[in-house]
Amino acid sequence: MTGSEISESHPRYESLLTRHRIEDGVDRGLTSRQGLIAQGRGEAFDYLLGEATIPSADEAERVAAAHLLRAEHAVLSVNGNVAALVPGETVELAEATGADIEVNLFNRTDERIERIASHLREHGAENVKGLTADGRIPGLDQERAKVDADGIGAADVVLVPLEDGDRAEALGAMGKTELVIDLNPLSRSARAATVPIVDNLIRAVPNVTAHATELADADRATLDSIVESFDAAEALEAAERRIRDV
Amino acid sequence: MTGSEISESHPRYESLLTRHRIEDGVDRGLTSRQGLIAQGRGEAFDYLLGEATIPSADEAERVAAAHLLRAEHAVLSVNGNVAALVPGETVELAEATGADIEVNLFNRTDERIERIASHLREHGAENVKGLTADGRIPGLDQERAKVDADGIGAADVVLVPLEDGDRAEALGAMGKTELVIDLNPLSRSARAATVPIVDNLIRAVPNVTAHATELADADRATLDSIVESFDAAEALEAAERRIRDV
Repeated sequence: MTGSEISESHPRYESLLTRHRIEDGVDRGLTSRQGLIAQGRGEAFDYLLGEATIPSADEAERVAAAHLLRAEHAVLSVNGNVAALVPGETVELAEATGADIEVNLFNRTDERIERIASHLREHGAENVKGLTADGRIPGLDQERAKVDADGIGAADVVLVPLEDGDRAEALGAMGKTELVIDLNPLSRSARAATVPIVDNLIRAVPNVTAHATELADADRATLDSIVESFDAAEALEAAERRIRDV
Repeated sequence: MTGSEISESHPRYESLLTRHRIEDGVDRGLTSRQGLIAQGRGEAFDYLLGEATIPSADEAERVAAAHLLRAEHAVLSVNGNVAALVPGETVELAEATGADIEVNLFNRTDERIERIASHLREHGAENVKGLTADGRIPGLDQERAKVDADGIGAADVVLVPLEDGDRAEALGAMGKTELVIDLNPLSRSARAATVPIVDNLIRAVPNVTAHATELADADRATLDSIVESFDAAEALEAAERRIRDV
């Protein structure tokens, strides 16, 4: 079964597609053991959220789109699960916003980075960063600190889906605007984010692209006002309320 | 790092032990990909529960112990995650209650059953069922229906940790008393159970053993009254309240 063979009208379409892509990601060596456990954690939170993009997440996705469009230099950080779950969708978001794509792993090996980069190229990515690794994020262990100096190192806005809490906090401490996609609104990553997006990657990434496309011709004042009206704490509270009190 | 090298006083002892045992389970071919995803789902629910045995779970564990002690023929069903996470604890529970141990997998292969049985034997199990597979649970697909006729097939009480919903419902339809350990109180497994135990395996199994040891000399009337006073719907509600309203 390939992704394209799953009918979109199937009631469990999204869940089947996710499962298929994750299995395929393991076969291709993109998804790690920790990635599979993280996928399970995400499934549980998504289940409690009602497996839907809640209004506060949709708003956060619009705000993220505005940040990416305003950025001097935006980078989309890609790990094994992102590459497995939304490779084409990530390339589309990069194209819609002019962002770079950089592979950045919790358990870094050059071999896995190369496999992920090659998977992204198969989905249309033209220039995948992450292998130079000539920059460092202050305050992290040696391997986890590595970034490309002209990628995340130089970025003013970074989209980090499924980021680990330490790195999310360290990127924030560098003064970068951090857009975090994480299904757990209580996680340190979500709490460290400038814009926490509490939504499933498979719904969130295409929706940020849709907002970016809609805002493509917006002037700077419009983008500024979208960004400034956002309240991260309120978005986290709305997600937590949905999880706790359905 | 082996399990015995993790100090029990470490604030993240339980979490480190779990992570270590799951990693080891993958290395030994006990834990499957689906098992890793299930582990992650469990972690998320456990996080929301406060990573503690809540009072209603402790009560359910006492009731489960009474059921196991009353049984004509009790069986502890073991899958890959149970074998990886609580092999010695499962053997101790079998010894404390006189229950049989049977390996029963969602994705059944004789090779994986043999590996799991051998892992349990290394932890002291003397007679591990599951390889004969000469019985069937009505209403399930061929491979998932397989049980030992003189094991789960003949049991009046079955402890099924982390069971899949279809099998939990099918075992219930056979009239068996089902004790289910599942961290998601909304799952079909938990809802199908005679006694749903909403707790982490790594806390629940030793606690059922502790209750069984304490009840070892209890007379039948005492065990009956413990069993009869239990309200499954109330236990599920208490767990759901804890998850939703911490």
